[in-house]
Amino acid sequence: MNRQIVLRERPRGVIDESTTELIEVPEPTCGPGQALVKVAMLSIDPTIRTWMNDAPGYMAPIEIGAVIRSSGTGVVVASQNDRYHVGDIVFGMTNWQEWVIADDVNRFSVIPADLGVDLATAMNVLGVTGITAYFGLLEVGEFRPGDVVVVSGAAGATGSVVGQLARARGAARVVGIAGGPDKCADVVERYGFDECLDYREPRLSSRLRSACPDGVDLYFDNVGGDVLDAALASIAMRGRVVLCGAISQYNEVGHQRGIANTSMLIMRRASMRGFIVLDFAERYLEAQGVLASMIHDGTLQHREHLVAGLEHAPDALNLLFNGGNLGKTLVVVDESIALA
Amino acid sequence: MNRQIVLRERPRGVIDESTTELIEVPEPTCGPGQALVKVAMLSIDPTIRTWMNDAPGYMAPIEIGAVIRSSGTGVVVASQNDRYHVGDIVFGMTNWQEWVIADDVNRFSVIPADLGVDLATAMNVLGVTGITAYFGLLEVGEFRPGDVVVVSGAAGATGSVVGQLARARGAARVVGIAGGPDKCADVVERYGFDECLDYREPRLSSRLRSACPDGVDLYFDNVGGDVLDAALASIAMRGRVVLCGAISQYNEVGHQRGIANTSMLIMRRASMRGFIVLDFAERYLEAQGVLASMIHDGTLQHREHLVAGLEHAPDALNLLFNGGNLGKTLVVVDESIALA
Repeated sequence: MNRQIVLRERPRGVIDESTTELIEVPEPTCGPGQALVKVAMLSIDPTIRTWMNDAPGYMAPIEIGAVIRSSGTGVVVASQNDRYHVGDIVFGMTNWQEWVIADDVNRFSVIPADLGVDLATAMNVLGVTGITAYFGLLEVGEFRPGDVVVVSGAAGATGSVVGQLARARGAARVVGIAGGPDKCADVVERYGFDECLDYREPRLSSRLRSACPDGVDLYFDNVGGDVLDAALASIAMRGRVVLCGAISQYNEVGHQRGIANTSMLIMRRASMRGFIVLDFAERYLEAQGVLASMIHDGTLQHREHLVAGLEHAPDALNLLFNGGNLGKTLVVVDESIALA
Repeated sequence: MNRQIVLRERPRGVIDESTTELIEVPEPTCGPGQALVKVAMLSIDPTIRTWMNDAPGYMAPIEIGAVIRSSGTGVVVASQNDRYHVGDIVFGMTNWQEWVIADDVNRFSVIPADLGVDLATAMNVLGVTGITAYFGLLEVGEFRPGDVVVVSGAAGATGSVVGQLARARGAARVVGIAGGPDKCADVVERYGFDECLDYREPRLSSRLRSACPDGVDLYFDNVGGDVLDAALASIAMRGRVVLCGAISQYNEVGHQRGIANTSMLIMRRASMRGFIVLDFAERYLEAQGVLASMIHDGTLQHREHLVAGLEHAPDALNLLFNGGNLGKTLVVVDESIALA
């Protein structure tokens, strides 16, 4: 059988037990041009929450009754497609289920067995979250050595890589913003940021001004809302704001929290630019090469938060919003599948 | 004597009779390295209102007791500086007064007598407002032929030039946003926009979506607030938002109205960039050349709203905010001074 988690009703605010349903359907069979993949791990990303809304986005909403859309990894167990070979570990849109069919349309990529890292690390730093950090900082944010860089969601899978990359490339100063003392400690001690501000404490704007007295050259935003507004208040002349995500807003019901400090973009001749990592799909290998070498030479620290069991995927998604995770959140569907 | 309008107290909201004071001081005398300029006209710009606040900006606030800062034109009546010759018509920071000293620090530029336009036109299209439109559209907005362009404050001095320039350079569609039926009629009939939406009518977002069903490639914002938010909701893939001004917010007391749709910048991989025309100061002649030739070949319509008398400068400033002006607002201080 194939256990699947499907969307039962669209959530208002935080997802709960009425949002999704665990069902069982027959295991799919491998037809011509197809490969049968047994799912190993699911990548739990904030964007999944946005796909549950019936709202315009960069992808269509998940249909009611459909399996929850998600990237993940698995192993090829049968193949009638030259692209896939039995035993290959593949990455693609597995969705929240135990088995998936890979073909020429929903193309999966094969993860090289000789990466020298375990599957969880590959899915974190070498997966979409690490790649997002790479292109967001270097391409969208036009990072330059000497920049004062501020990153929100700094303890998270993308934010932690942004800060370490900025440090490795010669940032003058790297300041994180995260929620709570544990995450802030992780950001400074594990990831080597110069400082980390807890957004749950009062007066973030003035603390950020103290932390970056000459202004913020590059602000990498993963959270939106009040934190973005505080960062805009400290933007430096010709500063750049990279909009990667707005996790503080994804569970908001109705109108989103407004940003009041957009006029700082005029005063400081600054820019704000949004992106989606898919736009850089042809260049993923470049990012993965750089990030892999940083793992191997020890300049890139990382942390994975593993949740065991497909049935816990909805809870794992909520961890991203209530701050209960520490590092990249992954759901282990089949722990027996490993890289190399 | 030299009549001056000085800042008496910082306004909260709209300026009123307690904000400024008309005083008389002795006429300045021309010392070594100086020129004495008799002021002809004042350029009344929304940015003057922002300088009255005790808030960080791209220039220091006007000090209490100081003459209101303003650009303007005048004629040189005495000179001990080789840069200035008696009879020259000059442009610079005249401030709100009848006489001003020009020197090597507060450099005035000499307006060529053979421009073939009157002084009011020179101060409008060839002045800061027209130059702002030129660099905002072409440089900051990276205008491309085929763009769908939307301009707020479309009946205003800058907005009307933005739309006409976009049309002349091959925009697919030019849509204005303005306040009230008279201004909207002017935008379509005088300035040749395809359509103009009245922001005072309800449901601007949905009307904008209907006016630009394929999205807005370039939005030139002069007003901020709700109108900016509505434009973000319709931004096209890889669209560009140029932040030129936020006139709807300059009289706001306390926190400014928030922009809720910043996440559209992510979904649409769009960018938002602020600028100040001073950044392009070395290239003003380029803009003036293009704009002058468009006036002469009839492709650039313009309109000036003249207010007579230095003492009415505060009222003239308020016209910008209550919608009482039609075209570039200028205060005539000495009507006897003319170009050529």
